[in-house]
Formats: sequence, C-alpha cells, structure tokens
Amino acid sequence: MCQLLGMNCNTPTDVTFSFRGFAQRAGVTDHHEDGWGIGFFEGQGTNADNPQGDDRGLRHFIDHLPASQSPVAELIGRYPIKSRNVIAHIRKATQGVVALENCHPFVRELWGRYWMFAHNGDLKNFAPRLHASFKPVGSTDSERAFCWIMQELAKSHAAMPSIAELSITLRELAAQVASHGTFNFLLSNGQALWAHASTHLCFVERRHPFTHASLSDEDLSVNFAELAASTDRVAVVVTAALTRNENWTAFAPGELKVFESGALTAW
Amino acid sequence: MCQLLGMNCNTPTDVTFSFRGFAQRAGVTDHHEDGWGIGFFEGQGTNADNPQGDDRGLRHFIDHLPASQSPVAELIGRYPIKSRNVIAHIRKATQGVVALENCHPFVRELWGRYWMFAHNGDLKNFAPRLHASFKPVGSTDSERAFCWIMQELAKSHAAMPSIAELSITLRELAAQVASHGTFNFLLSNGQALWAHASTHLCFVERRHPFTHASLSDEDLSVNFAELAASTDRVAVVVTAALTRNENWTAFAPGELKVFESGALTAW
Repeated sequence: MCQLLGMNCNTPTDVTFSFRGFAQRAGVTDHHEDGWGIGFFEGQGTNADNPQGDDRGLRHFIDHLPASQSPVAELIGRYPIKSRNVIAHIRKATQGVVALENCHPFVRELWGRYWMFAHNGDLKNFAPRLHASFKPVGSTDSERAFCWIMQELAKSHAAMPSIAELSITLRELAAQVASHGTFNFLLSNGQALWAHASTHLCFVERRHPFTHASLSDEDLSVNFAELAASTDRVAVVVTAALTRNENWTAFAPGELKVFESGALTAW
Repeated sequence: MCQLLGMNCNTPTDVTFSFRGFAQRAGVTDHHEDGWGIGFFEGQGTNADNPQGDDRGLRHFIDHLPASQSPVAELIGRYPIKSRNVIAHIRKATQGVVALENCHPFVRELWGRYWMFAHNGDLKNFAPRLHASFKPVGSTDSERAFCWIMQELAKSHAAMPSIAELSITLRELAAQVASHGTFNFLLSNGQALWAHASTHLCFVERRHPFTHASLSDEDLSVNFAELAASTDRVAVVVTAALTRNENWTAFAPGELKVFESGALTAW
C-alpha cells in the first residue's frame, strides 16, 4: 500500500519536519520503494495579474527511485519550500510498472488552475470512458481515476465553482470510484485540500497553543510553539499518524473531508 | 529577452555541461533573473505497459529565483539526469509578473502524452479564443500561445499523428502566432524536439568523431570523445551559441526545425 501526506495551511509553511518522517517510510521504516513524489502550490502574493493573491504556481517533484535514496528527496528535506497546500506520495506499486510516468502526485490543468492528485489503494475493473481531454500518460488505476474525476468535474461545472460546490460534486464522484475498491486520495487546486478515505487516513490540526511533536519514524522532535506564530493553523492528513504525541483523528470509511486555511471546513 | 536551451539525443544523455553555461546567463554573464525552468523526458525502457520503450515520464523543475542563485538549479548542475529530450528556459519578464506560474517550460497533457513548451519573444495583441480544454494558469503571452497550439493540435488530429504530420500542422500554427511578434519556441512530447525561430536560435549536432568543446560563459571544457560512444548523437538548440569551438548553425526567420534521435529531420 502506498503512503499519502497532505498539508493545508493558512500561511505558507514548510513541510520539512513532516516530510522527514514520511520519507523514512520508503525503504527504511517501511517498504514503499517504487518511487515517490511531492507537489507544492505557491504564490508570490497579490499583484496586478493576481489581485486575490491566489497560489497558482506549482512546484512538482517526482522520482522513480525510493525517497530514502533520492537526491531530489534529500533536497526537499533540506530546502524549506513554503506552501499552503502540499501533497506527497510514496509508491508501493500494485498496478502499473515502476516508472516515472506512474509516480504520484499527478497534475492536470482545469479552468486555468493546476490540480494535483495522489491515491493510495487498488481499484478493480475500473475502466471508465475517457472521451474528453484528460487521458492517462502512465498505466496506473490512480491516474485513470484522476482523469475521470477531472473529466466529470469539467462536465459538471462550466467554470471554477466555489469550494463548497466542488465538494458536493467530488463527494458524488468519489463514491462512484470507491465502489471499485480502495480509494484513499488527496486532491488540491491550491485553494483547498480534499481528502477521501476508503480505509486508512487520519488528520491533525495544529493551532495555538502549539506543543512539542515527536516523529514516529525518526528520533526527531520539534517544538511548534517556538516556530509558529499564534495565528498559524496547519492541517496534516496522512495514511498513518506521523507523530507519537498528537491527537490524530481517523477518517470514517467513505468520508470526504475538505481543508481550507489550515482547518477542517463544514463542507 | 529570455534564453532557450533544447537537447534531443538518440540515447539518454545528461545535460550538465550545457546547463552549466546556460545557467550562468541568469544574473552572472547576462541579466535574465526572473525565474527559470527545465524539464526532462524520461523512460525506464521497454516493459509490459510500454512495449515501445517511449519516454513518457516528465521531470519538471521551475523556480522564480534566478537560476544562478537557485538551490534547485544547483541540484540539476550536480545530479546528472539523463534524458533524450530536454527543454530549459531562463526568463526575462516582458509580459506577466515574476511568479512561479509564469516560469517556462509549461506542461500540458494531450493524447495521453505530456507536452512541454518554452518561448522567447514578445507577442502583441495575441488574444485567441481559448474555448477548449487548455487554459493559461499564469498571465504570459507564452502560456497563451502554448494553450492555443495545444487546442488547435487537438482539433486537427483525433489521436497522436506521426511526427511528420505533427510538423506540418505545427508549421502552420507557428506562422499564425509569429504574425503577432517574436516567436522563438521549443516544444517536445518526449519523441521529438520542435524548434521555431523568429529571430535568434541556432543549433549544433554532436556526433562521431567527437571533439573538445569550451563553454562561452564559463571557463570549462569537455572532451566529448572521452565521454560519448561512437554511435551517440546529440542535437542542441539554443538562443545564442554555448561553446566557442563548435559549428553552430543559425535558424532562418520563420523556420521550424524538427529533431529526432539527435539529428535534424527532413520534416
């Protein structure tokens, strides 16, 4: 089974701490050795072309080497890229060979925004008609599911809808795909993070008052109280809890949760 | 003006030597400081999912920092990623603010393949109707031109045509865009490298017998005769010649050249 990591924040935050523990799961504390990937949405604040200050830029790193041996992963662990929406994935191949084009997260453009998707699980007999403009490049069930979701979103809405409306559509689409097998996924367009669980997914919200956290996979602790401002809010969604001393909440099967500005929304 | 670098080879080759000289042009030997990017197509050879051994995977790095200061550029210079099709770009902003979403190369998927595009120049009054599934995320004329080319390719061919057929269509489309201004561009889908010049573009073909080459921008020489096998062929396309002692051929204005397996084709 693959491993997922998502982060959604109200202020650009570096993912170095969480990514360190997460990357250990590729071949050191666990055996997910068939590639990995991470994507960061980034903005340069408000400007004439982007008065909302939306995070439209996307930095995307994938590697077919295990994350624990990858020079690119080593760079990410060292270079504190700050982002409000991050998705990372470590692959244990179930469908599709070990190849760069099969590494998550996958990226497509819709309505003038990049969308990034990563999946954990296994879909059986999932061969939807892909008649529109989203076709898989690789050979995974995951990319096929992502292309179908993009196609159906494009059919359901003429232009970018609100996060609340998108969440309603995504909940319907996720249930259809999930009927074919295990469909834990993370999706982001730089505005929100959608997380759907069939089996394993849990999340934590970090906010004032911040505390110490100790990684489960490596002997490393961090005191967020020293690093974070009192208004910072960070939500982390992951396959298995990353820290020993925080309150991780498990998703119920079939649940789609939506995170905005570092907090779980009511959508 | 921006700087373009493209490489097309018959065997996966690392771009470290050419990229070193090229990256110096961002803020050291020249003043292109508004971001940069590079993309590498990669395959893992033939396998059950990919009997042709096509290079379907894409590694894509962009940064809004100058290439001469970017830790990501430093990684690329050090870590020899091998590829048969590479496109790199250093940006000097003419249209669109300095932001990650405005860094080239841009990437889209069409017919189950990634396409990568980088542009040098400036287009005036270029506002084509983008009614289909390719919309710009950033605010550059370059990404607009790329989206329009993808849209028109998708309209002209139902599925992936041959390189020769694609080249005929691209030649017609490039001429239409070029009527709006300077349109030097590089485009690749992992099979071929298309290069179009309005003003400045030149290329060199490296093949047996290989010789010494000295970078124009840095005090560095390499003896390709020691590094390359006698069957290796590499074509390099660039805005301004990278080396002092090789025969660079300039493009004529309006010319679209197509490179496959490290050599100029007849298309």
